[in-house]
Amino acid sequence: MKLPQGFRTAGISAGLKRSGRRDLGLIASDGPLAWAMVSTTNVVYAANVARNRELHATGRPVRALIINSGNANCATGQQGIDDNLRMAAAAAQQLDISDVDEVLTSSTGVIGVRMPIDRIEAAQAELQADLASDSSAFAAAILTTDLVFKQEEVELPGGARIVGVAKGSGMIHPNMATMLAYVMTDAKIPQEQLRVLWRDVADRSFNQVTVDGDTSPNDAAFVFSSGRLDCDLAALHEGLLRVAQGLARRIARDGEGAGKLLTVQVSSAASDEDARAAARTVAGSPLVKAAAHGNDPNWGRILVALGRSGAVFDPAQVRIDVQGVTVYEGAPQPFDSAATSELLRQDEVLFSIDLGAGSGSGNAWGCDLTAEYVRINADYTT
Amino acid sequence: MKLPQGFRTAGISAGLKRSGRRDLGLIASDGPLAWAMVSTTNVVYAANVARNRELHATGRPVRALIINSGNANCATGQQGIDDNLRMAAAAAQQLDISDVDEVLTSSTGVIGVRMPIDRIEAAQAELQADLASDSSAFAAAILTTDLVFKQEEVELPGGARIVGVAKGSGMIHPNMATMLAYVMTDAKIPQEQLRVLWRDVADRSFNQVTVDGDTSPNDAAFVFSSGRLDCDLAALHEGLLRVAQGLARRIARDGEGAGKLLTVQVSSAASDEDARAAARTVAGSPLVKAAAHGNDPNWGRILVALGRSGAVFDPAQVRIDVQGVTVYEGAPQPFDSAATSELLRQDEVLFSIDLGAGSGSGNAWGCDLTAEYVRINADYTT
Repeated sequence: MKLPQGFRTAGISAGLKRSGRRDLGLIASDGPLAWAMVSTTNVVYAANVARNRELHATGRPVRALIINSGNANCATGQQGIDDNLRMAAAAAQQLDISDVDEVLTSSTGVIGVRMPIDRIEAAQAELQADLASDSSAFAAAILTTDLVFKQEEVELPGGARIVGVAKGSGMIHPNMATMLAYVMTDAKIPQEQLRVLWRDVADRSFNQVTVDGDTSPNDAAFVFSSGRLDCDLAALHEGLLRVAQGLARRIARDGEGAGKLLTVQVSSAASDEDARAAARTVAGSPLVKAAAHGNDPNWGRILVALGRSGAVFDPAQVRIDVQGVTVYEGAPQPFDSAATSELLRQDEVLFSIDLGAGSGSGNAWGCDLTAEYVRINADYTT
Repeated sequence: MKLPQGFRTAGISAGLKRSGRRDLGLIASDGPLAWAMVSTTNVVYAANVARNRELHATGRPVRALIINSGNANCATGQQGIDDNLRMAAAAAQQLDISDVDEVLTSSTGVIGVRMPIDRIEAAQAELQADLASDSSAFAAAILTTDLVFKQEEVELPGGARIVGVAKGSGMIHPNMATMLAYVMTDAKIPQEQLRVLWRDVADRSFNQVTVDGDTSPNDAAFVFSSGRLDCDLAALHEGLLRVAQGLARRIARDGEGAGKLLTVQVSSAASDEDARAAARTVAGSPLVKAAAHGNDPNWGRILVALGRSGAVFDPAQVRIDVQGVTVYEGAPQPFDSAATSELLRQDEVLFSIDLGAGSGSGNAWGCDLTAEYVRINADYTT
């Protein structure tokens, strides 16, 4: 996709992936970028997450981000911290950025194995030469076991644009899925406002994706603004949400072994937080996921997943619709189960839930649970 | 198993299960029983759970418990409440118990379908005639999709005995796993003390079993004391814990589609609560479970599951042993991965984790994640 003004990205193969696929990516800007980041809540986190958080706390703008796939540089101790800094320094030097603190880093891939930093350093000239105003090579370079690219774009009134690129939630030997997202816009917005928006957007998008309930030590979602074009704040907020939710859907749809996308919409919750927790719990329930795989309109599993979500509600006030068919409304409803099962034989499945407890709402995205998921994650033997 | 003094149990077929297997069970005593119960934390719970909680709150002793399998009598509205009370009344009448409040009830099976209460009422004479001082028929009558009986017994110094019977965690169309446990002892203990012990025992046993993270609206674990024999309190506590943990292991081992039992032992946690949360999260992680299925000594997945458990620790202080082999100790350790993988090809797998954060400890029990789990839970199509 064509990038917003002020951005160029690159993606090349530096020899980190055995497959020879692209594994080193770069986002660069001529000028300072306002930015915001949300990152993993896991107590275990990678060197790059620790450093990016420190830089985030300074409130200073950045000019570039370098990312490698194929190695997460996590659980690698002091060596990993040093290697991560070397990666930032290599990109800074190549891009003539005098302050290394203006270069962020990301890594995704194997845990607990030293990163081949020499190869990353040696690839800098080629990486810079690949910089272009199109996101495709970068979108390829950040993938691990993903089956498809994940990109979204939105054009705002007044001409500003938003382009988002993401990866996840594939898994990689010997470790785990990482969700990464990079959203770029040329809309002008003060950094402090951008950070407020981004927290809200992330809570309503990336934080509502569930594939298997395991969080990665490298998860992070970034937004960058080059500040070239004026834009209405509400329109920008809405645009960022559209891009982020679009990426979230793509991540869930490409979940490990997934056969279909599950969207769970919760309304009339006591609060937005309750709605999001309820939606996440249903989308993440192994029983609901397995039922979706089997085209089974199993409202009992949905009701009981809601019951352990922490959301406050009275089961007698709940309504559950499966693909538009009301199957429970305070009590079991008569419905044509064969026809409803047929409706579940689609690439996208919608569960709509009215909790009857207030005016909060929220969505979550997940995927069905398949034997292929087990095969992918079990059949590797050391 | 031979029951403790003062107890008789029965198990017959009342025609609730299509298979014709036993589906109606009874625990009866000649005299008053001190008792304690822990039950599901799900917001959605069955009529019997609601009634048993009310009776528990009165602090009064009971004399019997009647249980049916094949129908959970959950999400059945006022009809379900009425049917549940009819079930208790039928047993009370047959047993000549004048106060229906002395009869507890349990149900497990299909959700959202009216219970065939007529069949339960009609079977009372046969049920009473089946009462015997052996637990086997009762142990069969409470099963749903379980593959094996689950019983444990312990003899205490002084001659008092404890016998426990459980079911779970199979799943039943169209709904969900239920874990039920009934522990009987002739050891004498005041009811208030019994309730304190039982809460502690349940927290260290039944509440540490995870098959798929979904809780049932009918989960409950009961203990009954006929008070016939004197017993040291500490010995009784220890005996109850042994029986409950033994049942917990059996439930996990018989988890849906399970190929092996996973035991997660956490030590040196900041608190027992932290240790239990950490153990539960590791035992419940789909990635850890899939790796166990594939005989993959994947310490990264264990470390990262610990990281999202809520337990407080520093990854640099953590040690992880897989089947006795140290694979991580603040940093990745060299180990023979092929040999360790061979060690994982066993029916029982042990992960031992030292969090290096204090003196808390706790265990959890789970099972591996297999394609069979997905098949069982997905292949039903309406």
